Amino acid sequence: MASLGDIGVSALINIITAFAFLLAFALLRIQPINDRVYFPKWYIIGARTSPKHTHNFVAKFVNLNFKTYLTFLNWMPQTMRMKEPEIIEHAGLDSAAFLRIYLLGLKIFGPAAIVAFLVLIPVNVSGGMLFFLSKELVISDIDKLSISNVQPKSPKFFAHILMMYLFTFWACYMLYKEYDVIASMRLNFLASKSRRAEQFTVLVRNVPHVPDQSVSDTVKCFFKKNHSTHYLCHQIVYNANKYARAVRKRQKLQNSLDYNQLKFERHPEKRPTRKTGFLGLWGKKVDTIDNYHQKIKELDEKLTMEHQKILNDPKRIMPAAFVSFNSRWGAAVCAQTQQSKNPILWLTEWAPEPHDVYWKNLAIPFVSLSIRKLIISLAVFALVFFYIIPIAFVQSLANLEGLEKVVPFLRPVIEWSFIKSFLQGFLPGLALKIFLWLLPGILMTLSKIEGHVAFSVLERSTAAKYYFFMLVNVFLGSIATGTAIQQLQSFLHQSPTQIPRTIGVSIPMKATFFITYIMVDGWAGMAGEILRLKPLIMFHLKNMVLVKTERDRLKAMNPKSIDFPEAIPSLQLYFLMGAVYAVVTPILLPFILIFFAFAYFVYRHQVINVYNQRYESAAAFWPHVHHRILASLLISQLLLLGLLSTKKAANSTPLLAVLPILTLTFHQFCKNRFEPAFRKYPLEEAVEKDTQDEACEPEIDMKPYLCEAYLHPVLHSIEEFELFELGVDHNRAHIPNQLATEPISGSHVNEQENKVSSKMQHLEVVVEQSESVSTRNHKTLSLNVDVMHH
Amino acid sequence: MASLGDIGVSALINIITAFAFLLAFALLRIQPINDRVYFPKWYIIGARTSPKHTHNFVAKFVNLNFKTYLTFLNWMPQTMRMKEPEIIEHAGLDSAAFLRIYLLGLKIFGPAAIVAFLVLIPVNVSGGMLFFLSKELVISDIDKLSISNVQPKSPKFFAHILMMYLFTFWACYMLYKEYDVIASMRLNFLASKSRRAEQFTVLVRNVPHVPDQSVSDTVKCFFKKNHSTHYLCHQIVYNANKYARAVRKRQKLQNSLDYNQLKFERHPEKRPTRKTGFLGLWGKKVDTIDNYHQKIKELDEKLTMEHQKILNDPKRIMPAAFVSFNSRWGAAVCAQTQQSKNPILWLTEWAPEPHDVYWKNLAIPFVSLSIRKLIISLAVFALVFFYIIPIAFVQSLANLEGLEKVVPFLRPVIEWSFIKSFLQGFLPGLALKIFLWLLPGILMTLSKIEGHVAFSVLERSTAAKYYFFMLVNVFLGSIATGTAIQQLQSFLHQSPTQIPRTIGVSIPMKATFFITYIMVDGWAGMAGEILRLKPLIMFHLKNMVLVKTERDRLKAMNPKSIDFPEAIPSLQLYFLMGAVYAVVTPILLPFILIFFAFAYFVYRHQVINVYNQRYESAAAFWPHVHHRILASLLISQLLLLGLLSTKKAANSTPLLAVLPILTLTFHQFCKNRFEPAFRKYPLEEAVEKDTQDEACEPEIDMKPYLCEAYLHPVLHSIEEFELFELGVDHNRAHIPNQLATEPISGSHVNEQENKVSSKMQHLEVVVEQSESVSTRNHKTLSLNVDVMHH
Repeated sequence: MASLGDIGVSALINIITAFAFLLAFALLRIQPINDRVYFPKWYIIGARTSPKHTHNFVAKFVNLNFKTYLTFLNWMPQTMRMKEPEIIEHAGLDSAAFLRIYLLGLKIFGPAAIVAFLVLIPVNVSGGMLFFLSKELVISDIDKLSISNVQPKSPKFFAHILMMYLFTFWACYMLYKEYDVIASMRLNFLASKSRRAEQFTVLVRNVPHVPDQSVSDTVKCFFKKNHSTHYLCHQIVYNANKYARAVRKRQKLQNSLDYNQLKFERHPEKRPTRKTGFLGLWGKKVDTIDNYHQKIKELDEKLTMEHQKILNDPKRIMPAAFVSFNSRWGAAVCAQTQQSKNPILWLTEWAPEPHDVYWKNLAIPFVSLSIRKLIISLAVFALVFFYIIPIAFVQSLANLEGLEKVVPFLRPVIEWSFIKSFLQGFLPGLALKIFLWLLPGILMTLSKIEGHVAFSVLERSTAAKYYFFMLVNVFLGSIATGTAIQQLQSFLHQSPTQIPRTIGVSIPMKATFFITYIMVDGWAGMAGEILRLKPLIMFHLKNMVLVKTERDRLKAMNPKSIDFPEAIPSLQLYFLMGAVYAVVTPILLPFILIFFAFAYFVYRHQVINVYNQRYESAAAFWPHVHHRILASLLISQLLLLGLLSTKKAANSTPLLAVLPILTLTFHQFCKNRFEPAFRKYPLEEAVEKDTQDEACEPEIDMKPYLCEAYLHPVLHSIEEFELFELGVDHNRAHIPNQLATEPISGSHVNEQENKVSSKMQHLEVVVEQSESVSTRNHKTLSLNVDVMHH
Repeated sequence: MASLGDIGVSALINIITAFAFLLAFALLRIQPINDRVYFPKWYIIGARTSPKHTHNFVAKFVNLNFKTYLTFLNWMPQTMRMKEPEIIEHAGLDSAAFLRIYLLGLKIFGPAAIVAFLVLIPVNVSGGMLFFLSKELVISDIDKLSISNVQPKSPKFFAHILMMYLFTFWACYMLYKEYDVIASMRLNFLASKSRRAEQFTVLVRNVPHVPDQSVSDTVKCFFKKNHSTHYLCHQIVYNANKYARAVRKRQKLQNSLDYNQLKFERHPEKRPTRKTGFLGLWGKKVDTIDNYHQKIKELDEKLTMEHQKILNDPKRIMPAAFVSFNSRWGAAVCAQTQQSKNPILWLTEWAPEPHDVYWKNLAIPFVSLSIRKLIISLAVFALVFFYIIPIAFVQSLANLEGLEKVVPFLRPVIEWSFIKSFLQGFLPGLALKIFLWLLPGILMTLSKIEGHVAFSVLERSTAAKYYFFMLVNVFLGSIATGTAIQQLQSFLHQSPTQIPRTIGVSIPMKATFFITYIMVDGWAGMAGEILRLKPLIMFHLKNMVLVKTERDRLKAMNPKSIDFPEAIPSLQLYFLMGAVYAVVTPILLPFILIFFAFAYFVYRHQVINVYNQRYESAAAFWPHVHHRILASLLISQLLLLGLLSTKKAANSTPLLAVLPILTLTFHQFCKNRFEPAFRKYPLEEAVEKDTQDEACEPEIDMKPYLCEAYLHPVLHSIEEFELFELGVDHNRAHIPNQLATEPISGSHVNEQENKVSSKMQHLEVVVEQSESVSTRNHKTLSLNVDVMHH
């Protein structure tokens, strides 16, 4: 058991790390050369361009205005200037809702911490005597402040149970309010949107095969018959994966050609040459420009053939379609009803945003989906329970007594008190973090195999898996030491009432571990997040080596999105820790509160200045967040029940048993009350918007827009594909409308595929378009921009 | 442990009982005086009337045709003459689907029994040696035939595991086929129905209160706006419970008046008088006819006032409505979509049949529903786990050693071998049965409190509770002896893997108990069912004492419906026993097979000749049946797993662990594949029917029919209420149509309320109407009718 001193050392290390990161960030962010790393969002929406017209050459790279160095922490108040509605307009509802999770954490745990400090800590500390304010306390063991300090059978446990009740009611009240706010924000957000393809479109899967009829005709017949007055048109889904690969290859060649032509223009005396062999290292020497021209010509022929093939070969047509309706009402009805007598045919659901579609999974038939789900759940289960072995091994290393046994010659070093504190305080959390770093990629792959059709759903599914992993391995695994399989086996052989006991007993003892975890993962991690060290280095490396055109530079910024699959589960882990320790070891709460507040600032800054969301799901992840916070409450209640039952508090413990039932009822109520807002689209709303639209523009013909919106991006002309890859296809997804307000800023830059480079003229089109639609933003946000523009 | 001899005695008793019942039935059913008891269905559909024109007076009461006595078992082949489509037409799809459950039992367990007898019993018996065919076996312990006879660690357990796999696959295959058949039967049945109110009507609940607007106007506005092209009309729900009570009182008075008038007509010399006091025992003597006339007049005034009050007092209008649409498509869309932004307002669901509506629960608001659900689940849990105490007490009495300890002076009697066999074989099952007899009423009340709005749903909910009860108390409770609370406690303190072990071990030992249970509950119980002893006695008693008019006689028949809440769960219990013992003690299977076959004949007879279904849910209970049979399979797998793990069959047991996962996957697949057919109405189907209707009768105006169909029956004129109580309101629910085929034979006779008696003329209207619509039935079924019409 680490003492308060150990925690002090650990806290010091982490605070120093965090401050070092912050200082570095403060210095780096005001250098013009880094501007694209720390403010990419403004470049993407077109509010900033490269500082071309500076007279001073040095000033292009280094900030010479020394005044700005003095106020190096002023990014924090700056982030607060943008109000929530502006954030929604600037970065979308997903980002705004994500920020609200941190605020929710502050709202739930802030008052809880105050009450716990005023009531529970005195109760815990006064182990019969009142040496509560004595000096001894400060250097005493952290257990003195926790529930461990209370004698068994003590009537004081009533205080803990009361606190648990208060905490649960308070948390549920805040959760209810928050769900209410988010649900109405979502409805308002959807309502305020101008006409967009996804509001009128439904994705139909498992179209049955009708002999002697094309898929397109089958779809047309079916919807003409069953939605006669509402059906407008449909878009067949092509299997264009092969074609997409060829297109990307062509773009690469084109980019190299552009680069060489630019080079040749600058130095007309030397015509570039290259060797045809591997990586241009050997082989016949040829003229580079001619060589690329020829290659592109060959590829173009292939592409034309492949394009023809896709459009004509019935095998390339998937049994799925995007069906568009002439009103939101028609689409809402089709998405929510059963179409066919055979319920596994003609499955309908709302179409995701065109950006959000994961094309590869559209063709999976229903039976295969069921099997995939089964296999993936087994795989996730195996992953969760076998991945724990290495973690437990590293953690047993961090157990100093164990380490001394393994490597006895290291004993003198380990015994040195600073090293000891470092090892005990820092290492376990760090080891865990490194392991967790590898995981999201694997889980995302599993989710893709599972067959979801939208990136947003994929990310939510990954987040769910990741949370399960964190719960079992990070939380429960850290509390109950021993290898995972042993744990699983002993749990299987224990009685169901024994499990919360076994875990409950060791909870107070693990408080220090979680405090260090919060500091490493939360504090230092957040400071690392804002520093963006990896993107910073990558940007400058790419700028030196790879960037050939202006468009490459735009790509090299790599602003990324909020990393939902990773950020939300770890966030939920903090809620779990807070809920469990609020009553057991309240001293943990301030650490969590600092994390929430700090993370709130950091993510606010990132959302405003850095991230560029790939898609907009209108806070569709909120039910998951809500459910998991409720699950945390339930877990904390069960663990407290287990803990108290070992304390022989027989007269008070049964009082707690009611709480889980009340919590579950609250869960059920919230599910009925709010969840439909996230799953369905009320007809009332649809009719309202339809009527509004009709009043504004009665004679608009949406057919041309709707029919093209869901064509696989690669099947538009190649130039359009490039635009799409940069997320600027809104003239297809977005029906032109006088009411249009928000720019489409989702960038569909798939990391594995971002080797596309390009032609200047397209970029200019892109920037022009972005600027024109973001004019309004520019004005409303000008204050912030001016301030932040060093 | 009972020996085969004990079982023999028990079987003998039960077979004798069953045969006695059957003989009694065979003799009683051919007496004309009992005709209304054993063939009430034919009276209700109008295919039979009282034998008025017989010349022989005795022949009116006793069957004098002695030939018919010789063929007393010929009702069995007779029941088989009616084919399934005829049964559907005659008694509805619910009855036909109910009969198919028994067939399913035969299909699943028949081949299983053959394979088990050919493979497993030889394997079990040859406990190393092959004395399989020796004479000793026949009188040896029943355990010799079960898995108990196999040595621990024996490789023979592979045979049991293989058998379990085969059995599961076979059962799943049959379940899949059956689900498929029932689903398509349901769709065909719904499709073949002529226009009926419920196809066009949606029940809307939780209509919000809008200030200064009546509920009716609110509903009208909302649906005019959101379903503009489909909304036709709506019917407000009135709180008419008080009025209904008054109407019933008036009917009672009217009936007494009729009776006295008839009496006076027959004996004009003596004008009837009565005393005004309690039960007419004391008080002032008055002229009966005048007295009733006056009372009816007073009541009529009150009724008129109350009627006015209901129609005008806004407090009597419930926030619910039946909304009708001009097409099935419109109704299907409304029933399946979310209407309002606030998802707990404007809740829509398909309207039940007008007969099926449980009016009292229509006004429960959403929040109250959630709370009710919680409370009722807690109550059911308590009931299930505390009700077990008396059962366990009686069963411990039936344990002879225990009984001898409690009442030592009875020892000589008990030790007498026949008594011993009787007590051990007969008593435990009987005690259980008596306890179970009390239960359905309580569970139905709980379901009513829970807030379901249709009788069919109430019955299904009761059935679910009853099954839970049977599973815990009859099945698990019988296997694991000891009081329930002890059991619950020890289960809570055991590990999850220990529970199937504890139960698994005692399974083979309880085989005899379940065999006697099958014989008492199944064989003798079924024979009792067909004898209808209680209705027989009640009918003759009523006929002598209470029956004043012809209509009373119709009521006194009391044909009842299939008792779904009780029949389906006990049926499912047989599936559970069969699944568990198929591998463990296959000797149990023939007993179950005999039960299924016998019950199939009995229920077929009853469905054809006796039962009159109150409502028609088009086999809506099938998913429940399917789920619970699957649950039985799962339970049997887990218990076998537990049993094998105690047999130290370490090399074979893990093979079994895959089976539950496969079973769950199958469950998930069936849920997706078939369940929507029972919950939703596909738009394809709706459009087809709409188009058909339009082609047949393009200019029909449904508004007048639809608007009145869902008025509370008591608010029609009093005469109509009486017709409704007898289930003959089809000119309201059923839109006249040339395609009309099926008669509406649901009788809404609520048992607690069936003291209504009446006037002759109405009955004649009823019978006339019934006859006219059932003409077609009459013809197609004439063969059967003639045969059965002794």
